[in-house]
Amino acid sequence: MMKEAPLAPELAVTRWFNTQKPLTLAGLRGRPVLIHAFQMLCPGCVIHGTPQAQKAHMMFGDSDLAVIGLHTVFEHHDAMGPAALDAYIHEFRLTMPIAVDQPGDGIPTPVTMRRLGLRGTPSSVLIGRDGRIRHHGFGQEDDMAVGAMIAAAIAEKPFRTAMNAAGITDTDACTDEFCHAP
Amino acid sequence: MMKEAPLAPELAVTRWFNTQKPLTLAGLRGRPVLIHAFQMLCPGCVIHGTPQAQKAHMMFGDSDLAVIGLHTVFEHHDAMGPAALDAYIHEFRLTMPIAVDQPGDGIPTPVTMRRLGLRGTPSSVLIGRDGRIRHHGFGQEDDMAVGAMIAAAIAEKPFRTAMNAAGITDTDACTDEFCHAP
Amino acid sequence: MMKEAPLAPELAVTRWFNTQKPLTLAGLRGRPVLIHAFQMLCPGCVIHGTPQAQKAHMMFGDSDLAVIGLHTVFEHHDAMGPAALDAYIHEFRLTMPIAVDQPGDGIPTPVTMRRLGLRGTPSSVLIGRDGRIRHHGFGQEDDMAVGAMIAAAIAEKPFRTAMNAAGITDTDACTDEFCHAP
Amino acid sequence: MMKEAPLAPELAVTRWFNTQKPLTLAGLRGRPVLIHAFQMLCPGCVIHGTPQAQKAHMMFGDSDLAVIGLHTVFEHHDAMGPAALDAYIHEFRLTMPIAVDQPGDGIPTPVTMRRLGLRGTPSSVLIGRDGRIRHHGFGQEDDMAVGAMIAAAIAEKPFRTAMNAAGITDTDACTDEFCHAP
Repeated sequence: MMKEAPLAPELAVTRWFNTQKPLTLAGLRGRPVLIHAFQMLCPGCVIHGTPQAQKAHMMFGDSDLAVIGLHTVFEHHDAMGPAALDAYIHEFRLTMPIAVDQPGDGIPTPVTMRRLGLRGTPSSVLIGRDGRIRHHGFGQEDDMAVGAMIAAAIAEKPFRTAMNAAGITDTDACTDEFCHAP
Repeated sequence: MMKEAPLAPELAVTRWFNTQKPLTLAGLRGRPVLIHAFQMLCPGCVIHGTPQAQKAHMMFGDSDLAVIGLHTVFEHHDAMGPAALDAYIHEFRLTMPIAVDQPGDGIPTPVTMRRLGLRGTPSSVLIGRDGRIRHHGFGQEDDMAVGAMIAAAIAEKPFRTAMNAAGITDTDACTDEFCHAP
Repeated sequence: MMKEAPLAPELAVTRWFNTQKPLTLAGLRGRPVLIHAFQMLCPGCVIHGTPQAQKAHMMFGDSDLAVIGLHTVFEHHDAMGPAALDAYIHEFRLTMPIAVDQPGDGIPTPVTMRRLGLRGTPSSVLIGRDGRIRHHGFGQEDDMAVGAMIAAAIAEKPFRTAMNAAGITDTDACTDEFCHAP
Repeated sequence: MMKEAPLAPELAVTRWFNTQKPLTLAGLRGRPVLIHAFQMLCPGCVIHGTPQAQKAHMMFGDSDLAVIGLHTVFEHHDAMGPAALDAYIHEFRLTMPIAVDQPGDGIPTPVTMRRLGLRGTPSSVLIGRDGRIRHHGFGQEDDMAVGAMIAAAIAEKPFRTAMNAAGITDTDACTDEFCHAP
């Protein structure tokens, strides 16, 4: 069943906040990753989703979970540019790494949002150590359920350890057990 | 004691939303007025203060209370311009009249905010039928207390009725009982 | 329209908590009264209604509002006797006067609850200075609305002052303006 | 470090609700167990702790987690007897198995509560598949944290599988890896 789960597509990002160097899913392979897709003027994000993602970033700070905010602007582009996002991040005291999704080419939906097939904001995508998508959520999600799915992803058998045991290197493609995103 | 309460200074506004024609405190004299001063990127406004003001606007819609949102931007001016505010009002489904406070001349604090002596956002200013300030609040306020102070202001003796009884016209200045803002 | 509102029937009480001497609506005539009907094992009471009534008791402590908790047990009588209620009042730190409604004669519904025509718990009954019912609520009520209706009741023309002006004494029955409960 | 964690002491129960047959920790060995210690008249239990435990009971219903409510009455014994608890369980729609802790012999603290060394109510005790205590909480706990610790306990290597692999039977005492409660 795990093998059926799709590999998470790579992020397409024009700018990062709260991180010294750009992050990639390829570079985070082996670690569980929680992507929180949001818009700074989306009420469900501002009031519930984004504080929840920030809370997960703090609560699992001792683990190897990576929480990434993804600013997927698909409406009101003029009101949610990088300067506005910068002020928002500052005022709402967000400390998780936040990526600006690459604008769509001639369409309002940005690139990573389209790749992930998100229905809107807030959306959450939980990626396992093997790079495959474990959970796809849209709208308000329960704190207890979010905590449980993150902990389950953290508890999964370490990916690189398993790869090493199988004699696989990072540059290999799929095996029976694991797949490497392009 | 009532006589001691200061007269509310007039609004200085560069743009209105959610109203066909500009509002003035002078024009609203005789009605109780709740001014909710906010910034669209102020967390305490977005999460608590502004929904509370919008709720008052709806709850007291059958009374003659006037609720006015006042966008008093004193920081991050680039991120909170009229286009951004327009998107915010739309996304958060705000229907109360909202005024953009006039930018300060060489200072970050806008004009009405300075006139009212506000300490920050969110702030609430409740003005009685006589144009005098009944309540000055800063930060999170309790719903029950807000409901009570609004109802008390609504219940006050109608200003114009009292003025008429005293033979005063709108163009008169102060009397022992009432004052007319310039 | 006010004249049409029914007079609140008198309380029938077997025991009081949090007050030195028994209270009666007749004795409170002239003051606004908020009756909060509850059962100590009713979830909607414990979680929302009773804390709201206790908050009103504290918030309007400087006014002449009287808040009365009325324990209207109509089910699980064995589990909600006076000893249990005493423990509940202590643990939940309730300080408003609380009356135990008189058990019904051969029916589960207690006497005052039946007189007031309550549909269940929590219920709130707001009584004006003239002894007439201003509001009848059942289930969860909004804090802002509760604050507003209480403040409106407090702001009403003092009953005794009006009675005195009209030359009425407490022992008189109804006049055009006011009625005295039996 | 795991080896240091104490074995959970057995429950001492005088009556069960919401289960056909009595439960024991010995009988649940191999499964993670969440014990929620509460009193029906403890505000922190009624408003937060008990709804949280009930939510965990529902949310993890597809896993082999066992959630047990433990009524540890250490005060107001007269108000929280079995009949009162029965009414409480019914009114608050609790469906998890609930045990009445055995009264202390001459002391107010009941037996299981003393064995577990609980400081008060609400308390939560999470027991791993090996019968050892993973977490000891007192007071209000965050939903996300609770979800995470439960999921981590569920994700632990199955106890009996590991025992079988090591050729251990249930009647063995401690090995390097696992210990069996007396």
